[in-house]
Amino acid sequence: MRHNLIEPGDNEDITNERRGSSFSVGKLATFIHGGEEKFRRRQEILKFVEAQEDFQDPIPPEFMSRKERVENNARKIIAMTNKIAFIDQSDIFEEGLLFQSLIMGRDFHAMSLHYGMFIPTIQGQTDDDQLDYWLPLAVSRAIIGTYAQTELGHGTNISKLETTATYDAKTDEFVLHTPTVSATKWWSGGLGKSSNHAIIPAQLIINGSNKGLHMFIVQIRDLKTHMPLPGITVGDIGPKMGIPGIDNGFLIFNNYRIPRKNMFMRYSQVLSNGEYIAPKHSKLRYGTMVFVRSLMVRDQAMQLAAAVTIAIRYSAVRRQGEWKPGLKEVQILDYRTQQYRIFPYLAQSFVFLFAATEVKNLYMRVNEQLSDGITELVQELHILSAGFKAVVTWEVAKGIEQCRLACGGHGYSHASGLPEIYSFAVAGCTYEGENIVMLLQVARFLMKTVKEIRSSSAHLAAIAKYLLDDWKHKSSFREWQAAKYEDLVEDFEQAARNQIYFAYDYMQQLQKDNHSPEEAWNCASVELCQASRLHILCFMAKSYFSRIVQCTEPEIARILDLIGKLYLLYEISTHCYSFRKADYMSDEQIKNVKCGIYEILGNLRPEAVAIVDSFDFSDRELHSVLGRRDGNVYAAMLEWAKYSELNKTEVLSTFKQYFGPMMESARSKI
Amino acid sequence: MRHNLIEPGDNEDITNERRGSSFSVGKLATFIHGGEEKFRRRQEILKFVEAQEDFQDPIPPEFMSRKERVENNARKIIAMTNKIAFIDQSDIFEEGLLFQSLIMGRDFHAMSLHYGMFIPTIQGQTDDDQLDYWLPLAVSRAIIGTYAQTELGHGTNISKLETTATYDAKTDEFVLHTPTVSATKWWSGGLGKSSNHAIIPAQLIINGSNKGLHMFIVQIRDLKTHMPLPGITVGDIGPKMGIPGIDNGFLIFNNYRIPRKNMFMRYSQVLSNGEYIAPKHSKLRYGTMVFVRSLMVRDQAMQLAAAVTIAIRYSAVRRQGEWKPGLKEVQILDYRTQQYRIFPYLAQSFVFLFAATEVKNLYMRVNEQLSDGITELVQELHILSAGFKAVVTWEVAKGIEQCRLACGGHGYSHASGLPEIYSFAVAGCTYEGENIVMLLQVARFLMKTVKEIRSSSAHLAAIAKYLLDDWKHKSSFREWQAAKYEDLVEDFEQAARNQIYFAYDYMQQLQKDNHSPEEAWNCASVELCQASRLHILCFMAKSYFSRIVQCTEPEIARILDLIGKLYLLYEISTHCYSFRKADYMSDEQIKNVKCGIYEILGNLRPEAVAIVDSFDFSDRELHSVLGRRDGNVYAAMLEWAKYSELNKTEVLSTFKQYFGPMMESARSKI
Repeated sequence: MRHNLIEPGDNEDITNERRGSSFSVGKLATFIHGGEEKFRRRQEILKFVEAQEDFQDPIPPEFMSRKERVENNARKIIAMTNKIAFIDQSDIFEEGLLFQSLIMGRDFHAMSLHYGMFIPTIQGQTDDDQLDYWLPLAVSRAIIGTYAQTELGHGTNISKLETTATYDAKTDEFVLHTPTVSATKWWSGGLGKSSNHAIIPAQLIINGSNKGLHMFIVQIRDLKTHMPLPGITVGDIGPKMGIPGIDNGFLIFNNYRIPRKNMFMRYSQVLSNGEYIAPKHSKLRYGTMVFVRSLMVRDQAMQLAAAVTIAIRYSAVRRQGEWKPGLKEVQILDYRTQQYRIFPYLAQSFVFLFAATEVKNLYMRVNEQLSDGITELVQELHILSAGFKAVVTWEVAKGIEQCRLACGGHGYSHASGLPEIYSFAVAGCTYEGENIVMLLQVARFLMKTVKEIRSSSAHLAAIAKYLLDDWKHKSSFREWQAAKYEDLVEDFEQAARNQIYFAYDYMQQLQKDNHSPEEAWNCASVELCQASRLHILCFMAKSYFSRIVQCTEPEIARILDLIGKLYLLYEISTHCYSFRKADYMSDEQIKNVKCGIYEILGNLRPEAVAIVDSFDFSDRELHSVLGRRDGNVYAAMLEWAKYSELNKTEVLSTFKQYFGPMMESARSKI
Repeated sequence: MRHNLIEPGDNEDITNERRGSSFSVGKLATFIHGGEEKFRRRQEILKFVEAQEDFQDPIPPEFMSRKERVENNARKIIAMTNKIAFIDQSDIFEEGLLFQSLIMGRDFHAMSLHYGMFIPTIQGQTDDDQLDYWLPLAVSRAIIGTYAQTELGHGTNISKLETTATYDAKTDEFVLHTPTVSATKWWSGGLGKSSNHAIIPAQLIINGSNKGLHMFIVQIRDLKTHMPLPGITVGDIGPKMGIPGIDNGFLIFNNYRIPRKNMFMRYSQVLSNGEYIAPKHSKLRYGTMVFVRSLMVRDQAMQLAAAVTIAIRYSAVRRQGEWKPGLKEVQILDYRTQQYRIFPYLAQSFVFLFAATEVKNLYMRVNEQLSDGITELVQELHILSAGFKAVVTWEVAKGIEQCRLACGGHGYSHASGLPEIYSFAVAGCTYEGENIVMLLQVARFLMKTVKEIRSSSAHLAAIAKYLLDDWKHKSSFREWQAAKYEDLVEDFEQAARNQIYFAYDYMQQLQKDNHSPEEAWNCASVELCQASRLHILCFMAKSYFSRIVQCTEPEIARILDLIGKLYLLYEISTHCYSFRKADYMSDEQIKNVKCGIYEILGNLRPEAVAIVDSFDFSDRELHSVLGRRDGNVYAAMLEWAKYSELNKTEVLSTFKQYFGPMMESARSKI
C-alpha cells in the first residue's frame, strides 16, 4: 500500500513526488481515518456509490443552472435515502458524512432540514400522541418538512421573533400570523418550493398574554397539488453566494388556522379552554446542537483538507520560474512562500479533524452520563462546541481561500473546485451560531470562571483548570526540534491565561471608570473574543497531542510530529504578540519560532503530496480538475471547458444581434 | 447639503443616524472626490446614465444565467461606447471608471480587453504602417480584438510561453502553432466567443533559432460568419468564481499561417529573407501597466467602500439583542465587535482611494519627465505600483468578506450585493501580477537598496530614503488623542526599517550557512514579503497624511483625523509584534494602541452612516438591497426574491417528477 496512488500514465512530477516520500500512505490514511476497518469501509462505500446509476450526475453540477441543480439534487436525495441501508446509520459522523458527500457533493438539497432539523425536533418536542402521529409520516417520507425559525428581521435573538400563534378557544385553533414584513420567515432550507410541512417557532398568545416562543407544526402546501394553502405565501429567497441546490424559502402567514394539537406539547401545554401549562423546568437541551456542530466541524475540516489536497497536487505539477537558466522551470511547491500559504492549513486539517472526533467522543460520554443523571460536563461541552465551531469555520474559510489563491488564475475557475468549496464552507461562519456571538458565549463562561477563581469559589471544568495553575513567567522554547509538546502546550496556556485575565481586569477597570457592566462588556468585547480564541487554541493543541501519542509507527509518528509542530509554531507566530507580552518570550525566541516554521516547511516539502494522498479523497469526492490524482491537469481542463454553456454553439447570438452589425457598419465607413 | 440623503418614508433608524452626525456629508463628499466640479460631474453622469433606455438591465443581473448575462453585457457595451462622448475621455481615472461602473456593474464584458489591452498594445508595438492599418479598425469597432498571452501551463514567467511563430521565407508567412496542450492560450477575456482578432505573444523561430517572445496580430474568426478560421480552435473556458459576463477563452493553433507583416515590428523586425533585426535597446515599458494598476487600485478601493457602505447602513437598521430588558433591540452597529469588523476597512477605503490618486499623479509626473528624457522615478514608480497593488487587493478582499460576514445570513444572499463584490474584487489578487510575486519584486528592490547602503553607494529613491535615517529606538506613542502623524509615520518607518534589515541579515546568514543565493532568497521569502508590506504601509501612511492636510474645514478635518488614526493604530495592532520588537514599543504602549482603537471606534460610531453617505454611491451603483439609501431593507428583499428563477412557477417540476410520487407511495403504506 506504500505507493498505491501511482498508476501508469500519471503526470511525471506527481509520480516522482509519490516515489520520493518517506512513509506509507496507507498507514497514515489508516491512522487518520481511525483504523483499518474504517479505512476499508471508505473504499466499500465509494465502490457502492460509483456503481449506482441513479447516484450519478448527467453533467458536472457546476455547469447546471440553479433550477437544473435543484432538480438533480431532488432526484439524487430520493435515490440516496432509498439506499441508505448500505451504510451504518449509527455512524453519521463518518459513514453518513462520506456517503452524503459522495452522492450530493458540496451542496444542500430539498430534504437537508427534513433530516437535520424536522425529524430531530419532532423527536424532542412532541408528546407521545404527537410523536406517534408525526414521526412515522416524516421518517417514511410521506411528508417533507422543514424548520422555519429565522425571520427577515430576526436571527440569533430568538426571543424577539415576531410571528404569533394566537389561541382561539371558540374553534380550538391557533391563528398563525405574520404581523410585519420583518416577521416573514426567511432562509429555512427546503421551505421555498419543496416542503409541505414546517415547524414554526412563534410567540404563543392566549387571551392577549404572550407566553413566549413555542413550536407549531404546520401544513403549508396541499398534499395532492402541492399548491400553497390559502393564507400561506411561500417561495424561494433567491440566489446566494453558494449552495445553489437547496430552495431556502420565505413564508408569510395571513391569519392561518391550525388545530390546537399542532402545538408541540412535550414541555408546555395549552388546554382546550385556553389554560396554559408552563414547562416544569427549563431543560438543558444542548444535545442536538452540540452533535450538529461536531458533525459540521468534521465536514469543515474535510473541506479544508480537500482544498489543501488540490493546492498541493497542483503545486507539484505546475512549474513556473527558473532558479538556474537552462534547467526546467521550478515546481511551484518548491517556493517557500507557496509552502507557507498552504502547509499551515494542511496542519490545521489534521488538528481540526482529530479535535472534531474528540468533541464527538465527549458528546457521547456526556450523553451516557446524562442517562445516569450526571450533568457535570454539559456546560463545558456546550461552550467548547461553540468556540470550537467559531474558530474552525473561520480558519477553514481563510485556509480554503489561501489554497485557491495559491493556485493562481486557475484557482478562480470552477474547474479547480475551490470556488465551490469556499462558498460552501464559509457559510459555516454564519449558520449554527454566528461566530462572534459564539466567541462571546465562550468569553462569558471564561469571565464567570475568573470571577469564581478570584472569589475562591471556583468549581472548574477540566478544560478551564489551567486558569488556576501557577503562572509561568518565561517560555523554555529554544528551537523546534528539541521542543516538547508539553512545554508548547504550557506556552499556549500561559498566553491564554494572560489574555483571559487581561480581559477581565480591563472590564473591571472600565466599570471603575463609570461604565455600566453592559458597556464595559461591549468596550472590552474585542479582547474577550481574543481570550476565547486562545482558550480554544489550548484545547486544539492538547487534543492533537493526545491523539498522536496513540501512533505506534515511527515513520508516521515523524510526519505527525512535523505537522503538530508546524501547527503550534504557526499559531504562536500568528498570535506572537500574545507570547511576546510581559517578556514571556524574547525576540530571540520569536525569531526561533519563525525560523522553525520555515525549516519545518522545508522538511514537509518532500512529503506533502503523500500526506494529502493520505486523506484518501477519491477523484469523485474531491471533484477538482486541478486536484486530480493523476496530475494530468491541463488536458482535463480543456475537456472540462467543453461543457460550458457558451460552447453549445460555435457562434453566439450576440454576433448576429449586436457585434456583427456594429463591425459591419464600421467597416463600411473605413 | 448637510443632510441631503434624508427623504420622507426612509427607515427611522437610518434617518436618526443621518440627523445625529456632526458634519456636512456634502463637504466630505466634495473632499473625497476632489472638489466641487468633480462632485457635480458625478451627479451629471449618474443622471445621464439613468436617462438612457439602452443602459438599463431588464432584470437584476444576479438573476440572469451566464448566457443571458453575456448577451446583456454585449448589448450594453455597444450602447456605452456609442455614447462615450458624454464623458471626458481624458479622465478615465474618475469619469471613465464611474461611467463604466454605472452601466456595466461589477462585471467585465466582451470588449474589456479590446479597450484595455488590444488597442494599447497596437499603439505601443506597431510600426507606422501597422499603426495606420490596425488602429482605425480597432478604434472604430470594425474588429473586436483581445490579447492572448497566458497559456494553460504558463502565467507569470512569460519567457517560457510555448506557442511558436515559425517564419516560412518561401511564403513570407509565420506559422503559428500550439505544440502541446499546456501551450493552449487560456483565460484571455473576450477570446472565447466574441473577438475576431487577437494579439498573440509567441516564440519567434527563424531557421530553427528561437529569437524570443514577439507579438503577432491574428485574425481568428471569419468577419462575415464569425466562424473560427481553419486551423483555429477557440472557445469559452467555462464558469468561474465571478465575473460571468465575459467569455474568457482558450485558443489552439494548428499550423496556422499569417502574413509576415502581422508581426508587430516597432522594436524588432523580420525581413522577407528571414533576416532578424533585434531591438536596439530593451525599453522600459512600465507605463501602461502602472496606469492600469492605479486604475485598478482606485476601483478596488471603491469596491471596498461599497462593501463598507452596505455593512454600515445595514448595521444601522438591523436590530438584534437586548442590553436592557423592555427596551428596543440594539442596532448591531452599537456592538464594538461589529465596529471592529467594519470600521478599519472604512478607514482603509479612504487611505487606498487617496493613495491611488497619489500613484496616478506620480505616473503623470513620470510621464512628463520621460518626455524630457528623465527616467529617475521610473523604477520607483514601478516598484511602488506593484507593492501597492498587492497590499491593496488583499486588504480589499479581506475587508469585503468581513463586511459580508458582518451582515450575517443576509450577507450570503446575492440580495446584499456582497458575494458579487467579493468575487469581482478578489480576482485582483491574481491578475495584473500575482500578489506574492509582486511583493517579492518590491523585496528585490529593497534588498538591492540595503546592499547599496551597506556598501555606501546608495542613490536612494525618495520612497526609500527613510532606510538611511537614524534608527529610532523608542516610540514616543502615549495615547491616540495626543499622537502626532509625524511621530506615527516614524513608528511605521522604524518597523519597516527593522524588518527590511532583518530580512537582509537573515539572507546573509543563510548564505554563510552554505545556502546558495537562490536558496537563501527562497528560505527568507516569507520575511521578505513582510518587509515589502511594511514598506508599502509607510507609503500609505505618508500619502494619507499629505492629502488630509489639504482639508480646510474643521468639521471634516476632525473626521479625517479619526479615520487616519484608526488606520494607523489598526495597522500597528495588526503588525504589533513588528512594533514590539527590540522594545521599540512597550507592552503598555501596545495596550494604549489597542485601547485607542476601541475608543476611536466609539467616536466614529455616530458618524459612520454619514461617512459612508459621503462616498456618494447611488443606489444604482451600490446595487445592494441591504445597502439601500432609504434603509427599507426587508420589504425590498421580499420584492427582490420574486425574481428568483424558482419562483416562476408555484409548483416546481420536482414535485410531479420526484417528491409527489415518493410521498404518495409512503402515505399509501401508512
